[in-house]
Amino acid sequence: MSEAEARERLLGLRFDADVVDVLVAHFADAERRGKVGHGFARIEWLATLELDPSARPVLVESEEGFERWDGHGALGYLVLDEIVRATLAHPPGRARVVVARRCFPTGTLGYWVRRLAEGGLVAALTATSPKRLAHPDGGPPLAGTNPLAIAIPSSDGPALVADVSMGAVTAGDVLVGRAGDDELVPFGGKDAHKAFALAVGLELLVSALAGPEHGAVLVVARPDHDPVPALRALAAGRRLPGDR
Amino acid sequence: MSEAEARERLLGLRFDADVVDVLVAHFADAERRGKVGHGFARIEWLATLELDPSARPVLVESEEGFERWDGHGALGYLVLDEIVRATLAHPPGRARVVVARRCFPTGTLGYWVRRLAEGGLVAALTATSPKRLAHPDGGPPLAGTNPLAIAIPSSDGPALVADVSMGAVTAGDVLVGRAGDDELVPFGGKDAHKAFALAVGLELLVSALAGPEHGAVLVVARPDHDPVPALRALAAGRRLPGDR
Repeated sequence: MSEAEARERLLGLRFDADVVDVLVAHFADAERRGKVGHGFARIEWLATLELDPSARPVLVESEEGFERWDGHGALGYLVLDEIVRATLAHPPGRARVVVARRCFPTGTLGYWVRRLAEGGLVAALTATSPKRLAHPDGGPPLAGTNPLAIAIPSSDGPALVADVSMGAVTAGDVLVGRAGDDELVPFGGKDAHKAFALAVGLELLVSALAGPEHGAVLVVARPDHDPVPALRALAAGRRLPGDR
Repeated sequence: MSEAEARERLLGLRFDADVVDVLVAHFADAERRGKVGHGFARIEWLATLELDPSARPVLVESEEGFERWDGHGALGYLVLDEIVRATLAHPPGRARVVVARRCFPTGTLGYWVRRLAEGGLVAALTATSPKRLAHPDGGPPLAGTNPLAIAIPSSDGPALVADVSMGAVTAGDVLVGRAGDDELVPFGGKDAHKAFALAVGLELLVSALAGPEHGAVLVVARPDHDPVPALRALAAGRRLPGDR
């Protein structure tokens, strides 16, 4: 699917043009980075959801160091886009914790934190999704794949962006047939208890702050130091997280 | 080594009694949880460091949503103990980011966030340590084992505490001879690039805020929901992160 086709299809789902811009920009970025499970394939999946295409997120509570948003029926992509734009427009003096309730789906979290880092902010973001990861000992799914994305601005070029899902494969990989459902387990093989613990910890962190529906928690801060160039020098050309 | 012997040895290193209490409480907790690499074995290692036993951490900057501490030559254990006690005494109305520069060693991070959760706060903590994890493709160490610990209070009993180091073994395991130096790689086998990405992301997050010396970043918030009991019910008796 081309960007133009994606745009047409989304307009056909009755999304406004500004919303379509947000969605296409995210899907196209995912395609460029090879994360096709978060790319244009999501549009057919969106068409199966019961959505209010006119819904918009709401800023419920706003302090210097804390914000609470409510998705209010809008797609999680739109919630995070609003939060990123609002944060870049009014960055914290030091740091801010941003909680988003009813924020799903959220796509590739690296995309949102990269934009914050390109605006000069350090950012860490996690989000919950349907429970798909079972305990390594078995039983029902207890946690979503709950990625953690961290982005750090760099004076020498692009931000460094680590974006790690706790699943051995992503739900998106399953969606586009790149992986089987049975491969959706905590990553790490014999160390899977570690990825499981991270998934459970992040799940509960978000749930304790954002409530039982899928949500997101973002931490943004102004950096006081510029550690990426020294790490790149030490890595001597090896691919670092988020490099294309 | 018994607690009494540990106390004697630390007093012999010229630490004050209140400092000895903090150190022994941490080491004893690590021993009880089987994390012996963070237990009493550390005392002989402390004896090899050049330390000012009278050094104390300093609160450098304090706002409702942000604090900056400086270890000021004190052991990281003392810095985190001060931060935990100060945070419990004056918890944030909503959320707070706490940055600690010159904060090493920090021990088992789960110990500090558990205390915050027992005081009713959600907490996430990470800290840097000497670079020991190389890129999965090889080369020099680029990141510490940089654990991430997350604790969530629960109305039905103990807090849930996820405490995950990004190394396949801990530096402490190597210290006490439980593991070889060559096992200190990012965890996850064929998925090691994921643990490596998390280690690098956390390393740079801390470095961007706390500077080039080892530091720590803590996020604390008041929970609005109580998600642990439902997860415990769903887990149906399976061991969850932090359970003894």
